Amino acid sequence: MTGTEQTAVRMKADSAEMAASSDELRNAALTRIEEMLGREQEVIFAENKKDLEAAAENGVAEAVVKRLKFDEHKLADVCAGLKQLRELPDPLGMVTLDRELDEGLRLKRITCPIGVIGVIFEARPDALVQIASLCIKSGNCALLKGGKETVNTNRILFKLIHDSAVAAGLPENCLCQAESHAEIDELLACDRYVDLIIPRGSNAFVRHIMDNTKIPVMGHADGICHIFVDEYCDQEMAIRIIVDAKTQYTAACNAVETLLVHRGIADEFLPKLAAELTKERIKIRGTAEVVAKTQKSLNASSFDSEAGEGTNKNADNIDIETITDDDFETEYLSLTVGIRLVDDIDEAIRHINTHGSHHTDSIITDNENNAERFMQMVDSAGVYHNCSTRFSDGFRYGFGAEVGISTGKIHARGPVGLEGLVTYKYKLYGHGQIVGDYASGKSSFHHRDMQ
Amino acid sequence: MTGTEQTAVRMKADSAEMAASSDELRNAALTRIEEMLGREQEVIFAENKKDLEAAAENGVAEAVVKRLKFDEHKLADVCAGLKQLRELPDPLGMVTLDRELDEGLRLKRITCPIGVIGVIFEARPDALVQIASLCIKSGNCALLKGGKETVNTNRILFKLIHDSAVAAGLPENCLCQAESHAEIDELLACDRYVDLIIPRGSNAFVRHIMDNTKIPVMGHADGICHIFVDEYCDQEMAIRIIVDAKTQYTAACNAVETLLVHRGIADEFLPKLAAELTKERIKIRGTAEVVAKTQKSLNASSFDSEAGEGTNKNADNIDIETITDDDFETEYLSLTVGIRLVDDIDEAIRHINTHGSHHTDSIITDNENNAERFMQMVDSAGVYHNCSTRFSDGFRYGFGAEVGISTGKIHARGPVGLEGLVTYKYKLYGHGQIVGDYASGKSSFHHRDMQ
Repeated sequence: MTGTEQTAVRMKADSAEMAASSDELRNAALTRIEEMLGREQEVIFAENKKDLEAAAENGVAEAVVKRLKFDEHKLADVCAGLKQLRELPDPLGMVTLDRELDEGLRLKRITCPIGVIGVIFEARPDALVQIASLCIKSGNCALLKGGKETVNTNRILFKLIHDSAVAAGLPENCLCQAESHAEIDELLACDRYVDLIIPRGSNAFVRHIMDNTKIPVMGHADGICHIFVDEYCDQEMAIRIIVDAKTQYTAACNAVETLLVHRGIADEFLPKLAAELTKERIKIRGTAEVVAKTQKSLNASSFDSEAGEGTNKNADNIDIETITDDDFETEYLSLTVGIRLVDDIDEAIRHINTHGSHHTDSIITDNENNAERFMQMVDSAGVYHNCSTRFSDGFRYGFGAEVGISTGKIHARGPVGLEGLVTYKYKLYGHGQIVGDYASGKSSFHHRDMQ
Repeated sequence: MTGTEQTAVRMKADSAEMAASSDELRNAALTRIEEMLGREQEVIFAENKKDLEAAAENGVAEAVVKRLKFDEHKLADVCAGLKQLRELPDPLGMVTLDRELDEGLRLKRITCPIGVIGVIFEARPDALVQIASLCIKSGNCALLKGGKETVNTNRILFKLIHDSAVAAGLPENCLCQAESHAEIDELLACDRYVDLIIPRGSNAFVRHIMDNTKIPVMGHADGICHIFVDEYCDQEMAIRIIVDAKTQYTAACNAVETLLVHRGIADEFLPKLAAELTKERIKIRGTAEVVAKTQKSLNASSFDSEAGEGTNKNADNIDIETITDDDFETEYLSLTVGIRLVDDIDEAIRHINTHGSHHTDSIITDNENNAERFMQMVDSAGVYHNCSTRFSDGFRYGFGAEVGISTGKIHARGPVGLEGLVTYKYKLYGHGQIVGDYASGKSSFHHRDMQ
């Protein structure tokens, strides 16, 4: 048995006690954690400084360093999150079905924790606090593995959170920590004890997890999001939305990667779009047809410009490259966007369902029927009408904290908050009933819903 | 690309149209199927006769032959099932969250089909009709693979059902059939196109499926169900329930396999239990302690008997065998039961969570607190108080048709009806909103629930 498996066995044993814990106890643990993090903030900041210094030594990019940093603002944020979580209703013990099968034989379907959850997350210390607290609120035991760049911060945060939870009365193994990369593979082999893995990180990393475990995995690898610009639409709105979806946070999974444009408006729309994309320094990768139409009109407008009409369009500074129909499965996560033309909405839907990643896709149209058709037939967690793909996020949806975004269709889908961390069980309360009496006809079911 | 993969690609393409189909259309298909099966019953019975003759030639056991048979009674049952299903509310398009994120930016969470489902089921022709109709009602495309013993019956039933569905207006690939065993492995490799596999069959078969695909699997391999007889309980009731749970249908996944008896009542309870089990020709496999206590008292009662007291207990005709603590993970599916003593309810809970299969477990007790503790801490799809484990079944729960019983905790759990065949998507309706405006503070969310 590996060390991780031994840990998982202990967690599995304690998960029963977690399932029976009261909302008061779980909330008391969250309160203690909040107090402890406040009291020990200087220790936390000192540990975080070690991680920041190591990052500086290793020449880690500034954007990444910003995420590693755990200062007073981040602390205030996580404490606000803890408070908000405490105020949410108990996700456990909710009765979702209450049916009398027969006199004195009552069936209830009741929400309960999933059990033991392994969470592997990126180098963001606030993620550790958020995930640990979501798991406590939902009565799950969590095995946490954070990014190695924040090892010192994670270690102190974990210790403070774990000790507070146990001091409040939760079982010793409600939270455990893994620190080494080797422990990830050990965790993936614990299918007998771990009920769910939630991986967050790069595509390649999440795919590796999905491909190497029998444990159910909730999350997403690719985020290849589309915007379809329909024939009848407000083209200025389309451009505003596209620019937002591409530039507002390029590294996000819900940033747009592919634009599908109705062929009927391509001649008019593409030059305007190309001009705006160029202003934002966005590189275009388009089919031959897209490149031809874009360049032709840009050349024409350059010519107009020389002829005296003022314009900031210029065929020279546009960054454009020709790709084939097979090149539309790339998640750029940068200032690059793929563009393809389609004959109609059905071709757009087919393209998205074939080449997309079932994450978030948007249609820009004035036609309500087309919008509804798109939203019914596109097989994605988020299907949007006239707005940016960047909205798909637990905070923007008003879920409070989120554990991640799922592109799977089994269990939770889209941004996942507390709801995705619970399952249910059927409780049947009897007075000695046996099935033989129902098979023989001596008794019969009346299936009366009680609520 | 294998033949099955080509089929799956076509099904995936048609799944978008299925998702957009109306309840009226899906119900119309069910009506046509019902009519067609009635009209063509003689053809169906003739094909079934071929299967029955082949079974007779191959010396198939009588119990199995009974399941292969598709006669007027079975036809009436499946037609009643089709009618009942048609009358159920549409499982699609249900709004489970309706929230205005901001003025003119409205989020709805709406139920939708899972997509493409592969169902591999046992040799029971009525199962084919039931599964196909559940998938149609829930808007899913289904690839069906039935048992080889009913190949002729399945072929004609599939043809009639498929042609009726297409004639009603559903897409060509809403239902497809696989006939050869090799196609199962091909299906398991189609993780890009198939969203869910539902296997029904032997433990070994289901485990093979679970271990050899990246596609989510809904079902159960083992059904190691327990009954815990607590210290304070109606012992006669306990015995009645145990006999029902073991004998009412021994081959069922919800039959009891292990009895846990509170040590405090063992001396009194075991002899009474052993006597009843012996009457029912049930073989006991117990720990050394169980065997000793049982035989000791049986010998004593045999002695009493010789001394004049009338009793039908006899140490000679009891079928009992000693096993160790490690032998409690067997699903007998026959007239054999394992028995172990425990010190208290917590030991019982630990045993069940460690050695069980998370299917259905029952406590027999007069103590309400113990019952609630057991039902909260036992990590199974069904947790019962004072009734037989055999009740865990979609029909008995009043779900109408069921596709199977799931012991997984992700997505559907326990008996799975229509609810387990749907997922949801988030639809976001905007008017040009971009995330940049919310990041800059120009706009802000108000998250107002609309229902």
